[in-house]
Amino acid sequence: MSAPDPGLLALNTATTRKRWGLAQAIAGCARHGVRGIAPWRDQLHEMGIEPAVQAIRGHGLTVTGLCRGGMFTAADAAGRKAAIEDNLRALDEAHALGAQCLVLVTGGLPTGSKDIAGAREQVRDGIAAILPHARRAGVPLAIEPLHPMYAADRACINTLGQALDLCDALDARSEGGLGVAVDVYHVWWDPNLEGQIERAGKARLLAFHICDWLVPTRDLLNDRGMMGDGVIDLPRIRAWMQQAGYAGFHEVEIFSELDWWRRDPDEVVETSRERHRRCC
Amino acid sequence: MSAPDPGLLALNTATTRKRWGLAQAIAGCARHGVRGIAPWRDQLHEMGIEPAVQAIRGHGLTVTGLCRGGMFTAADAAGRKAAIEDNLRALDEAHALGAQCLVLVTGGLPTGSKDIAGAREQVRDGIAAILPHARRAGVPLAIEPLHPMYAADRACINTLGQALDLCDALDARSEGGLGVAVDVYHVWWDPNLEGQIERAGKARLLAFHICDWLVPTRDLLNDRGMMGDGVIDLPRIRAWMQQAGYAGFHEVEIFSELDWWRRDPDEVVETSRERHRRCC
Repeated sequence: MSAPDPGLLALNTATTRKRWGLAQAIAGCARHGVRGIAPWRDQLHEMGIEPAVQAIRGHGLTVTGLCRGGMFTAADAAGRKAAIEDNLRALDEAHALGAQCLVLVTGGLPTGSKDIAGAREQVRDGIAAILPHARRAGVPLAIEPLHPMYAADRACINTLGQALDLCDALDARSEGGLGVAVDVYHVWWDPNLEGQIERAGKARLLAFHICDWLVPTRDLLNDRGMMGDGVIDLPRIRAWMQQAGYAGFHEVEIFSELDWWRRDPDEVVETSRERHRRCC
Repeated sequence: MSAPDPGLLALNTATTRKRWGLAQAIAGCARHGVRGIAPWRDQLHEMGIEPAVQAIRGHGLTVTGLCRGGMFTAADAAGRKAAIEDNLRALDEAHALGAQCLVLVTGGLPTGSKDIAGAREQVRDGIAAILPHARRAGVPLAIEPLHPMYAADRACINTLGQALDLCDALDARSEGGLGVAVDVYHVWWDPNLEGQIERAGKARLLAFHICDWLVPTRDLLNDRGMMGDGVIDLPRIRAWMQQAGYAGFHEVEIFSELDWWRRDPDEVVETSRERHRRCC
């Protein structure tokens, strides 16, 4: 496997969010030659959508995805309706940014519920409700299967196969507008990963997120590693993605309370560039 | 779903290990009317095998499983050979105890390795190496799929489907001696759980471990909940087990640094009894 095209590196701004707002992250990407960026909506709202659009366009960056939509599960109908309305707004924002997708973290169990099958039905219904708007807006929905350790409180879609089953159920004729985000952190362990990436194919592979799984992992949420510092065979997974037809960006997304969030973001981005070249 | 037969409650001694040695756990089970026990090898060695056999027999307890064998993965052939030899000793101990199975926690990535497919091959080879001895000893091997968050450092077998694939590969003609341990903590999130329990059937369902998944979970290893305190739909999973033909014990196994390990084990066992009746 040859080294990846450095022009395909993208920054998910969660990686630098403790020290950089969105304007700084945009400037930082430009300064370091990172050509793709994935903003989060809270920072987008802080900066303002129009200024963000101008800054991103001014630097010629690609918006690899907007983080995030989803969170469809709720204890009552009013909560589910509010979630759908929020997703429609997110789609409009993603459209304004020219984002390549809206990333969906689907939501876990509603408060007080033990019915994970029911939660999964809520997710299906939620995505079905926003898919027409996504198609109109020209913003594909990228279902991100999250690691099973987040099944209760973040996302009840936990494997790539399950996400693709959902795509097949809601977009049976492959009309587009629906696919998956493959984040190595969530799926690296899956014995069916290679086959499911192949099954997804170019049409459904909308995003590729990279980081690493540390041993030991000290925190369930915010202890992701920099590429190369953990146990994920990144070149192998990238090869599977490419063989399946994915030609998009490689988006660094690192939640790291104990390490990378404490560092100077310029160092984090430079390290990401170096590790992308050397370890991915 | 009617309440479970209280006579099917068993204690995995990990639940009480911080305050009770094995002799105390055996006496505790007898005192509280818990009819099954699953010892761990370190405590078994401390007590001595013959005294343990006598005490367990004296109280008429069933040994639902010996914890644990496995850990087949290693960086070199000498390490893998040592693991196999240790598993053979574990089988002899399990035989002496009349254990219903030897629980296999398969092992994760060898130190320095990122090759999870290779680790899985090592596991397959390790189980193949000890299966004849298990059959001779009359101690079935129970492959325990562990939650994917342990894929790197504890077990690279992470779903029930994957464990059953391994059973089918190594025991193609269902000659016996090989099956699975279903621990709700590891598999509750799996969208294929019901189907895989059905697939396993009576012949391969060797053990059933219960506890709960807490929200939030504060530690990857030692923050399991008491049945009823988390989000797992225990009656539903028990129903699937019974429908598949499983008629064995329901073994409470709670690793809980922050809560249950700090309490009086008599309280823990009594609470387990009450929750088993009410929440399982």
